Amino acid sequence: MATIKPSVPKGTRDFSPSEMVKRNYIFDTIKSVFRKFGYQEIQTPSMENLNTLTGKYGDEGDKLIFKILNSGDYLAKVKPEKLSPDNSNGLISEISEKALRYDLTVPFARYVVMHQNEISFPFKRFQIQPVWRADRPQRGRYREFYQCDADVVGSESLLNEAEFVLIYNEALSKFGLKDFTIKINNRKILSGIAEIIGKPELIVDMTVAIDKLDKIGLDGVVKELVERGFTETDIEKLKPVILLEGSNEEKLESLKGVLQTSETGLKGVAEIETIFNYVSALNAEILSSNRRLELDITLARGLNYYTGAIFEVKTNEVAMGSIGGGGRYDDLTGMFGLKNLTGAGISFGADRIYDVLEELKLFPESAEETTKVLISNFDPEAEAYALPVLQQLRAEGIAAELYPSSAKLKKQMGYADGKNIPYVILIGSDEIQSGELSLKDMKSGEQQKLRIEEIIKKVKH
Amino acid sequence: MATIKPSVPKGTRDFSPSEMVKRNYIFDTIKSVFRKFGYQEIQTPSMENLNTLTGKYGDEGDKLIFKILNSGDYLAKVKPEKLSPDNSNGLISEISEKALRYDLTVPFARYVVMHQNEISFPFKRFQIQPVWRADRPQRGRYREFYQCDADVVGSESLLNEAEFVLIYNEALSKFGLKDFTIKINNRKILSGIAEIIGKPELIVDMTVAIDKLDKIGLDGVVKELVERGFTETDIEKLKPVILLEGSNEEKLESLKGVLQTSETGLKGVAEIETIFNYVSALNAEILSSNRRLELDITLARGLNYYTGAIFEVKTNEVAMGSIGGGGRYDDLTGMFGLKNLTGAGISFGADRIYDVLEELKLFPESAEETTKVLISNFDPEAEAYALPVLQQLRAEGIAAELYPSSAKLKKQMGYADGKNIPYVILIGSDEIQSGELSLKDMKSGEQQKLRIEEIIKKVKH
Repeated sequence: MATIKPSVPKGTRDFSPSEMVKRNYIFDTIKSVFRKFGYQEIQTPSMENLNTLTGKYGDEGDKLIFKILNSGDYLAKVKPEKLSPDNSNGLISEISEKALRYDLTVPFARYVVMHQNEISFPFKRFQIQPVWRADRPQRGRYREFYQCDADVVGSESLLNEAEFVLIYNEALSKFGLKDFTIKINNRKILSGIAEIIGKPELIVDMTVAIDKLDKIGLDGVVKELVERGFTETDIEKLKPVILLEGSNEEKLESLKGVLQTSETGLKGVAEIETIFNYVSALNAEILSSNRRLELDITLARGLNYYTGAIFEVKTNEVAMGSIGGGGRYDDLTGMFGLKNLTGAGISFGADRIYDVLEELKLFPESAEETTKVLISNFDPEAEAYALPVLQQLRAEGIAAELYPSSAKLKKQMGYADGKNIPYVILIGSDEIQSGELSLKDMKSGEQQKLRIEEIIKKVKH
Repeated sequence: MATIKPSVPKGTRDFSPSEMVKRNYIFDTIKSVFRKFGYQEIQTPSMENLNTLTGKYGDEGDKLIFKILNSGDYLAKVKPEKLSPDNSNGLISEISEKALRYDLTVPFARYVVMHQNEISFPFKRFQIQPVWRADRPQRGRYREFYQCDADVVGSESLLNEAEFVLIYNEALSKFGLKDFTIKINNRKILSGIAEIIGKPELIVDMTVAIDKLDKIGLDGVVKELVERGFTETDIEKLKPVILLEGSNEEKLESLKGVLQTSETGLKGVAEIETIFNYVSALNAEILSSNRRLELDITLARGLNYYTGAIFEVKTNEVAMGSIGGGGRYDDLTGMFGLKNLTGAGISFGADRIYDVLEELKLFPESAEETTKVLISNFDPEAEAYALPVLQQLRAEGIAAELYPSSAKLKKQMGYADGKNIPYVILIGSDEIQSGELSLKDMKSGEQQKLRIEEIIKKVKH
């Protein structure tokens, strides 16, 4: 067998130990918050039947689904006329019946329908697993990446939406982020606006244009609205909405005025108010913090999908796209025959959060180290002395290693450095005689002679 | 779009919340032990280049690798003559360049070679990720399952082997297993035995036959040895080895006698002695426990692969195949051009451990529950009263939920039951007036009136 220069498929990544501790820190933090709010973890298989996935993500999405070749003699039953170089699409269903999941939403919907008789509704589940997309890889876009979703199905209560705000607030605060904004909008408000200007059919065009306010300014938005079929009169009606400013209360008051003739629009406003009331009863700080929770009617994320609240989360400390988002949807499981099950969900963008924490140097030191103590190994005598010391450290729950052979000190220190081990215990003949071991703090370079009990105390600190 | 009855691909599984908490308990326990011994986590992509995987698992293995269909117009460049119904094998490399990993060993070898300049050797890594095999699914055999491996590369020290014994001992003890056996053997001992009977080339035949002693008895083994080309004289020489009994020390003494003319054999014996000495210095209990660590020269697991110590772990409390195994190998990375890197590794069989803990009812209660407290919701007044209570519980780190709407008590209790929530707080007008909340213990059925501070204390206990 010829030697091959090893590589990974493009768009995929290895995660090294130092990356893994940081990634685990992110996932563990998010999981602990999900759990505290009653969300339960599930996992679904990496592969789904191809017909479970196709048709759910649009034609473009279907192309990006990774298909798995049937195993065995997969061509045996294929009709020869299907086997032609210009029939890539037509052949797929003949030679592939499974595919890698493209997101966590469709597998979740499939799960809910399959397990509906075992589930206690409302069902609050979270799921943190990789997904695969045959997208063109580029900076920050991978073909394998983790999604991190929490959804509740079977409950109309707006308490769920309020708790999503609390979940974002708690998780991001735990990460040490100080200035972030949870933006909220409601699809019904957008519908109401399209309704009062008499163009309900142009809701998507309207929101796509308004959504760009930050980037292209008011003039740009007006230009785009004209191109998309809005008249001067429409635009005059839209302007106060587009330029809506002030506190959340002020915005809600303005909207009540603008939307007074739209039942749907007012319902959207009332929903936002209810959510704010819940948030305020649960954690008054969130609403009193500057920009922490912000009604933003230009927010139009996933409009074709969401039917009520829409969320998007941004950090204001680093230039970065959204680090989370979600909303309420009314028909998750209809595609699998279970109708009228309402749901709401959010997700965290773990890769982006990773970059943010890295840039702001917010990873705690504990998320940088793995082994806490390395015991040096100079000769068989020192090694023999070290073994019970090693065991004592581990009995205290301290991750510890004995360098496995008597190598040069420089090599052993290099090992500790490379592994980011904060403490090294040096055992030579002096130490064996006195019972006081030299503890080297790898960060400060300081070295102290201490008894093992003192070392344990210091290392656990 | 027609409604499809949802299902998962055969051989794959959904994991429900109650299964996930138990699976996480298993993985978290194993991870914590790996970490304590200085093993660091890595993850590799689910997909590898097909040429990274093919040729590593034998012809049968290659067939079981799940191949991923190239995306886009994957047939466009395929020569028409390759497109024939009898060319399933020949077409694979034309239409598939990626595949799902089949185990964690080959991706690990690929990782070590790719990252050799960043790694501080000896490199102690663990990896817990799913693997995929197109095996015929059957009871206990899945097409997607997790492997749970720890390996060290770049260290010849037998301390590593001794620590594997400690890792097994600690993890399985943490699971509450009381009677399990870590079997150890050494490939060099087996080589020595084949050598002294003058049939080194029959080592595989010899070990395959001896390995069956438990199942087919001595007569069966003798019969098989004859069939596999051994003479009466050979078998007479083999018998004392096959029937080796007594303590580990007694077995080692006998082997020293039997193997006195085989340098390799004696080296194997010496290695086992060194490992035992390390184990004894680190944790004397292991060697003094009955059957905890047992030299078993019939153990031949993965003989073509291992070059030194061989491990296999069994529970004696339940009839179940091995729940772990491993050994030392001398050429992990040679296939990717990095020669002479020695390594040793072990793995845990997580699915089997799950079944064992289930059968012995060893999952701790905490591995059965997710949410700790449900607050009932009878009407808007009670709900308003409940919100700060909910927040107080969560501030104490208690996973808590408020039933999101004012449903019937029976429905709310059913929800708590279904989710295995141990406590329900009932808030009615009495409770609102007195400030003493009714706490129902869902297991005992008992109900007590308590202040929130008392409830927190009790629930955290």
